[in-house]
Amino acid sequence: MREVKVLTKILKANDMIAAENRALLDSHGICCINLMSSPGAGKTTLLEKTAQLFSGSISLGAVEGDVATSLDSERLSAAGIPTVQVNTGGGCHLDAGMIKQALLDLDLDRTDLLFVENVGNLICPSSFDLGEHHRAVMLSVAEGHDKPLKYPGMFISCDLMILSKTDLVGNCNFDLAVGKENALRVNPRLRIFELSSLAGTGMQEWMDFLTELVKGKKASL
Amino acid sequence: MREVKVLTKILKANDMIAAENRALLDSHGICCINLMSSPGAGKTTLLEKTAQLFSGSISLGAVEGDVATSLDSERLSAAGIPTVQVNTGGGCHLDAGMIKQALLDLDLDRTDLLFVENVGNLICPSSFDLGEHHRAVMLSVAEGHDKPLKYPGMFISCDLMILSKTDLVGNCNFDLAVGKENALRVNPRLRIFELSSLAGTGMQEWMDFLTELVKGKKASL
Repeated sequence: MREVKVLTKILKANDMIAAENRALLDSHGICCINLMSSPGAGKTTLLEKTAQLFSGSISLGAVEGDVATSLDSERLSAAGIPTVQVNTGGGCHLDAGMIKQALLDLDLDRTDLLFVENVGNLICPSSFDLGEHHRAVMLSVAEGHDKPLKYPGMFISCDLMILSKTDLVGNCNFDLAVGKENALRVNPRLRIFELSSLAGTGMQEWMDFLTELVKGKKASL
Repeated sequence: MREVKVLTKILKANDMIAAENRALLDSHGICCINLMSSPGAGKTTLLEKTAQLFSGSISLGAVEGDVATSLDSERLSAAGIPTVQVNTGGGCHLDAGMIKQALLDLDLDRTDLLFVENVGNLICPSSFDLGEHHRAVMLSVAEGHDKPLKYPGMFISCDLMILSKTDLVGNCNFDLAVGKENALRVNPRLRIFELSSLAGTGMQEWMDFLTELVKGKKASL
């Protein structure tokens, strides 16, 4: 019982900071997407490709969450995305306090669209509101189409789902129709994108979606 | 400070139960491997293939850990492996108490080699001793060769590493030499297997290793 109470308190404190983060982002007209997945699903590669395709027409920013190393923030910086690295030092998720701190190091007046690349973990990050406007779960076809059923908490917590590495689908035991059906079974509200960042397929729909998001956010200012 | 103390206490209690589990397994001459990885790296498929290749010459058992569903224990049971399903209901790892409970439902006198298939998560399970004799981390080539550097805790905690889905290596940005080098950089003690359960490559070395393990365990009785 004590453990449950402690967790509830931590989440309550987290949610208050998340609300502050969201208000700060709103005041700057920034749309924020919390991108979550298993390790190696392709989050960083998608952000690299997204930056390349926008080529400056929309100003991106990123908060890069990792247990260790700055490998991914180096990749994002090289792709032209101003990025703040957060190392959790063993921690399995980002929380709102880490994002609050990271936002101090970003130029919010020059950011349209902020990606938070969460720690690679299909379980723990789903419990923590960071102050984002959208939550996206990425599932690589190499992981198998049963994953939405096996990790329902993550898929229920998101409004977007990205089926990634679709170029590998012929080499994996992944049935795209079954994968989408499983996802929609645990969360019928999911908007699903299918894409391969490396092959470039499916990117247009993703880019159009992001463009509309940013337009909508600016219009609401 | 209080959080750290609570965690230390939980781990101490866990380690005591883990020691009991290990003593129980030892008294039955059972070798136990704690198999950990990201979601969808291929743990269940490797166990299916292992059972098929042993075809009863060594008696396998399994404890199957999942956030939700009994999909994997159904697969293992269909492969002829007596399996106990543990659902964590949102929990991100197995602990020694769950294994203690699961061992009550296995026929220990008829088990030579016990696999614990942990919850798919490259972070949290590494902190919990379950009473196993070996800890194996599986890394699918689809996840990328940087993962040992990015999730060092898991790779440091293990003595075995299985590079899986090597049939996909030509289609992924995974350099086998770099992947092994990264793993050995964080833990030079790692014994590394490279295999593809689906293609069947690399399975002989894995099977020989398991056979020797079981022989050694029986000899020590």
